[in-house]
Amino acid sequence: MVKDFIDTNEFTKEELLDIIDLSLAIKKAIKAGYNPPLLRGKTLGMIFQQSSTRTRVSFETAMEQLGGHAQYLGPGMIQLGGHETIGDTGKVLSQLIDIVMARVIEHKTVVDLANACTIPVINGMSDYNHPTQEIGDMCTIVENLPRGKKLEDCKVVFVGDGTQVCASLGFITTKLGMHFVHYGPEGHQLNEDHKAILEANCKVSGGTWEVTDNRDSVKGADFIYTDVWYGLYENEMPKEERVRVFHDYQVNRELMQLGNIGCKFMHCLPATRGEDVTDEVADSDASLCWDEAGNRLTAMRGLLVYFMRNAEKHSELEIKAAKEQLDKFLETRLGMDTNY
Amino acid sequence: MVKDFIDTNEFTKEELLDIIDLSLAIKKAIKAGYNPPLLRGKTLGMIFQQSSTRTRVSFETAMEQLGGHAQYLGPGMIQLGGHETIGDTGKVLSQLIDIVMARVIEHKTVVDLANACTIPVINGMSDYNHPTQEIGDMCTIVENLPRGKKLEDCKVVFVGDGTQVCASLGFITTKLGMHFVHYGPEGHQLNEDHKAILEANCKVSGGTWEVTDNRDSVKGADFIYTDVWYGLYENEMPKEERVRVFHDYQVNRELMQLGNIGCKFMHCLPATRGEDVTDEVADSDASLCWDEAGNRLTAMRGLLVYFMRNAEKHSELEIKAAKEQLDKFLETRLGMDTNY
Amino acid sequence: MVKDFIDTNEFTKEELLDIIDLSLAIKKAIKAGYNPPLLRGKTLGMIFQQSSTRTRVSFETAMEQLGGHAQYLGPGMIQLGGHETIGDTGKVLSQLIDIVMARVIEHKTVVDLANACTIPVINGMSDYNHPTQEIGDMCTIVENLPRGKKLEDCKVVFVGDGTQVCASLGFITTKLGMHFVHYGPEGHQLNEDHKAILEANCKVSGGTWEVTDNRDSVKGADFIYTDVWYGLYENEMPKEERVRVFHDYQVNRELMQLGNIGCKFMHCLPATRGEDVTDEVADSDASLCWDEAGNRLTAMRGLLVYFMRNAEKHSELEIKAAKEQLDKFLETRLGMDTNY
Repeated sequence: MVKDFIDTNEFTKEELLDIIDLSLAIKKAIKAGYNPPLLRGKTLGMIFQQSSTRTRVSFETAMEQLGGHAQYLGPGMIQLGGHETIGDTGKVLSQLIDIVMARVIEHKTVVDLANACTIPVINGMSDYNHPTQEIGDMCTIVENLPRGKKLEDCKVVFVGDGTQVCASLGFITTKLGMHFVHYGPEGHQLNEDHKAILEANCKVSGGTWEVTDNRDSVKGADFIYTDVWYGLYENEMPKEERVRVFHDYQVNRELMQLGNIGCKFMHCLPATRGEDVTDEVADSDASLCWDEAGNRLTAMRGLLVYFMRNAEKHSELEIKAAKEQLDKFLETRLGMDTNY
Repeated sequence: MVKDFIDTNEFTKEELLDIIDLSLAIKKAIKAGYNPPLLRGKTLGMIFQQSSTRTRVSFETAMEQLGGHAQYLGPGMIQLGGHETIGDTGKVLSQLIDIVMARVIEHKTVVDLANACTIPVINGMSDYNHPTQEIGDMCTIVENLPRGKKLEDCKVVFVGDGTQVCASLGFITTKLGMHFVHYGPEGHQLNEDHKAILEANCKVSGGTWEVTDNRDSVKGADFIYTDVWYGLYENEMPKEERVRVFHDYQVNRELMQLGNIGCKFMHCLPATRGEDVTDEVADSDASLCWDEAGNRLTAMRGLLVYFMRNAEKHSELEIKAAKEQLDKFLETRLGMDTNY
Repeated sequence: MVKDFIDTNEFTKEELLDIIDLSLAIKKAIKAGYNPPLLRGKTLGMIFQQSSTRTRVSFETAMEQLGGHAQYLGPGMIQLGGHETIGDTGKVLSQLIDIVMARVIEHKTVVDLANACTIPVINGMSDYNHPTQEIGDMCTIVENLPRGKKLEDCKVVFVGDGTQVCASLGFITTKLGMHFVHYGPEGHQLNEDHKAILEANCKVSGGTWEVTDNRDSVKGADFIYTDVWYGLYENEMPKEERVRVFHDYQVNRELMQLGNIGCKFMHCLPATRGEDVTDEVADSDASLCWDEAGNRLTAMRGLLVYFMRNAEKHSELEIKAAKEQLDKFLETRLGMDTNY
């Protein structure tokens, strides 16, 4: 059993569908008024090396809704990688909390952290991938399947820069047997390592993949997905350059019309309106980007429950005995009222 | 029904009294040992563009005491107004949490945020006003009414700089039919826009208002209120200049003696001891400034419950059915123990 | 009764043993599945003037496990010592939360804060001492007593720089009647004030103390403890200088062999591997440093419960009456559903 959620490629199709369906089952329960206390008394440590809106807020809300608590360990708040090695911080955190998520600058950091920790570690995005986004996006796709189609019938086209979100979308769609296209300009396409993974996934799942700058590849899309053009945080392109490189790859009315009737628009957000997507598309009825934001929360709940599902359980008798013993100590040694 | 708490002038006298009395009713319950779980499972997002002690701590304590949770979203932690527009952040937050508070630099930011959010937004202070302070201060005044007087009989004098706290005090006192004076030096008095609001409020409520540099205006005060002299954060006056401008407006023994017998001292804090108020006054029995700090918490609880009072409710049957369905999924699909 | 936990020297041996045994009793209960809600509805304010991993995370986890909540008030988040005096911030916090912990740069700050607050204040480390570390370390020592020995039979040797952790270890071991040695280079040894305290403690407890650069002093140690060489945050030594001064004081295989058979290694962490301790020792079976990290949480729970043990209690009747009165208000005045 895989302890950590670092890369969806470490999981089988069946395991990923378990996580997606679990996420949707918990969403349904909460919508009907039942917040299952599946993580009562549990603590999540949230390590952020960068600022974040969706990942931060959705993890913290998820823990609280499930009866637990999330600690925000932002840049400079703890000694990770400063006065202390990642390995030692991982060992220490494993003594003090129950599960960790980390948004990191370099993928290696979250891998090292997972190796150091005896508790589960969830990758909250690195420069390589964004697997919690993948789960949330699949929840959104499942909720919006074209009439009469199964997942395996759907074509998903990512338009624009080959970001970690693009790679992640390719990973999970090919793993699940879907049809994935990255339509992006040369020099900004998924690389050979990515392609090898897509190929390996498709071989098992029966899905297909394509990486191309041919606009015809968008035809027949059920879902058109994009991300910002400015690249990763450490290596942002100036506005003029990115507009020059990507201007054919804006998701606008014309591009959307290449897709199937009823084709949906997706975006991990934040969007740069007027660059990667027009207002008309982002705010249209075809836009799922706000649902995707909401399904970040859906995914976080499912992931947290899934990776904590084997935490130690205690019998009622054991718990009752522990309470009696503690209460006796509080009364006799400290004279405390145990009617707390 | 007004969705957001941005400006008390958007509410009737009756609505404001509802909020004040609700705040005091919850305070009484908690003092007697009953923390009502009115916000169980709910999450507040706290956006801060500036540092804050009272607003931050009181909102976070309020949510926890009522069974909910507050997330601290401090400067630089989320992408508000950076890589993402306020409108888009508002739409996203509405998917992930239940209610938002924002302490902003420019008033327009909290107004835009409220318009973008489908969930309630509470103004935690802007450069224009400080409405949560108003509610807390009214709680303090209600708890300390002069013997035999009603609210409508009371005279409240704000001394010194026409800050947003001064404006806010004028707004709520005139709305409630009280007698408000701003005694401050020319160039630092409430402006024509403020005066138009005070006038409109008094026309409805029967209250009175005055903005003046005439020291006689302090006579007969039941409550004397002041704030720091250094102005707003972005535009602080150097110490020499502010002492030159405001030295006649220090709240000291002599100034307090202009008020009625039993006149009380109020201050939103932080105070600059020796400038806007002497130690003798701030630490005297006539000083309510520490009660005001405590009543920030009183106000936050009342406001949170008031603006969340129409949140969706579910029947016990609906909740029970949701639990059964989820538990069945957890058992059959994941083999989990549902004795959680 | 001492309200605050600032310095273990303010407590008797019996009181310190109460805190240690309480910490271990709660640890046992939680391990058996029972999280006692001893701090339900209570809020801890955590003031940090420096970054921290262990102290931060363990306090926050402790509050949540005991049914309460901890607020992180990091550098720049509140106005402590900026626009507001420590005294005034202390008075305000006493109105808004139930207990405070502070990690401060100067010891005077936490002393002043404790004097200003009417609620309990816990010292989360200063430049003078680290008393929560002391309690956690004593829990670790109690759990790892050499076969057949009582606390009073044990010899504890601190090796290296006379940091606040070294001083703290000396304080608590001599208070409890143990045998304490600081083996460190001249110029980096505990000072005359420290020695006076050690002497006073031993006079009462029957313990012994020694401060020396004589390597023979390590002989017969049951526990060998060290800390980093780079000194306090404000006054860090460059690497070359510290290696020159401290290289004889590295805890390595040779030094460990001076101790008793079965001698244990301790470190407050973070460690600078290869400087103050070798990997071989830190990662050996003799190393307790990871247990110490876990026992920070053990200590925080015990301390929080101990210093909150006299908080006001309410009878069930009083609570029921408060609920009825509030519900009546919510129904009649606001038309709210009180089936919350």
